[in-house]
Amino acid sequence: MADTDQRSLADITIFSDLDADTLSDIEARCRWRNYAPQEQIIDFQDESKDVFFVTRGTVRVVNYSISGREVTFDDIQAGQIFGELAALDGERRSANIVAITPTTVASMSPAAFQDMLLAKPDIALRLMRRLARIIRISVERIMDLSTLGANNRVYAEILRLAKKSDQEGDRAIISPVPIHGEIASRVSTTRETVARVMSDLARKGLVKRKGNILEISDLTILQDMVEEFRGD
Amino acid sequence: MADTDQRSLADITIFSDLDADTLSDIEARCRWRNYAPQEQIIDFQDESKDVFFVTRGTVRVVNYSISGREVTFDDIQAGQIFGELAALDGERRSANIVAITPTTVASMSPAAFQDMLLAKPDIALRLMRRLARIIRISVERIMDLSTLGANNRVYAEILRLAKKSDQEGDRAIISPVPIHGEIASRVSTTRETVARVMSDLARKGLVKRKGNILEISDLTILQDMVEEFRGD
Repeated sequence: MADTDQRSLADITIFSDLDADTLSDIEARCRWRNYAPQEQIIDFQDESKDVFFVTRGTVRVVNYSISGREVTFDDIQAGQIFGELAALDGERRSANIVAITPTTVASMSPAAFQDMLLAKPDIALRLMRRLARIIRISVERIMDLSTLGANNRVYAEILRLAKKSDQEGDRAIISPVPIHGEIASRVSTTRETVARVMSDLARKGLVKRKGNILEISDLTILQDMVEEFRGD
Repeated sequence: MADTDQRSLADITIFSDLDADTLSDIEARCRWRNYAPQEQIIDFQDESKDVFFVTRGTVRVVNYSISGREVTFDDIQAGQIFGELAALDGERRSANIVAITPTTVASMSPAAFQDMLLAKPDIALRLMRRLARIIRISVERIMDLSTLGANNRVYAEILRLAKKSDQEGDRAIISPVPIHGEIASRVSTTRETVARVMSDLARKGLVKRKGNILEISDLTILQDMVEEFRGD
């Protein structure tokens, strides 16, 4: 592939501001590996407790119910880490991790990871802020699942995607067009529900697909539609 | 009240193994306050970013939808901490905190808290393990909400209560008898659904109320009933 391996930890967020010597000490404790799209990096059942740093690509955090229903938790980009829960507490993996683009990761043993956190408390503080952010996102999702119907959760997800995209006043451009199955997995509903909600929104003129972009015409109305039905 | 104030941090889990001098340094940075049952300690809207240590009593982490539906996240016992998210990241409060018994808490400013974590990396590591546990419980709840019907979530909650209680083989005694409204708030359903599920379980001989205890006669069958419907 055109991309070269990225075998440096300089762009990992929790390692920002480290001097070059400390960074190369940490790099020396890592093992590197590349993954192709769809390749599994962590299986829910794995015994391994390593922590991973993503230096290239994107991975998905995903779980499956016994009947096979997929629930997506997060997409983790280059610069972020995963596998830190088991590396911290020694318990089993909380989710599966799958590469969704060509990905390079560095892995570190739990002992080396914990030694590093004890030796470098500023890294520990950045990691704590990351864990805090994961908890905040989980609280929001639990509230959505507890108080919103499936339609409203789809509106809320489109709004989240719009807020992460190019905005101009009340309009936003989401690119690429989100895949119905991925939205469904992220808000815990079916692909059919997402398809129906998207058609309704298109009919009302609130979303318009143009090639590989999705244009949102009025974020305020969409926000009102989420809130309108909150709490049923 | 009969209980005396407990103005020591010696029993706070993340401070275990600290020497007496370090502990009294930390205590000197705290403000103490008592709360009566039902008194609010943190409001969702609060500007304060303090962290709190519970030295006596129990508090509840709870959120409300716009229409007023209550969603309970956790009960935090003496020995534990709350308010750590805002103290770590400076963002707004993620939930309300309400005393459910007579409670004593020590509070500390975010600056003092972060100084302490930087100076005492072993405290930081214990806090990270606590945050990891909160994330694991959240993942489980998101999976339950995404893949289980309301009845099954009630079975799952009774099973969780049973596993925290006195067990003897396949039997368990939950004491005191859980309140229907509290179960409903913890698994995001209505009190009426909990009442109906409990009646059904009693009719099948799986649960029996005796005064202020609830006896579960067969944990294995209850576990099977949770799993049976997982993934619909």
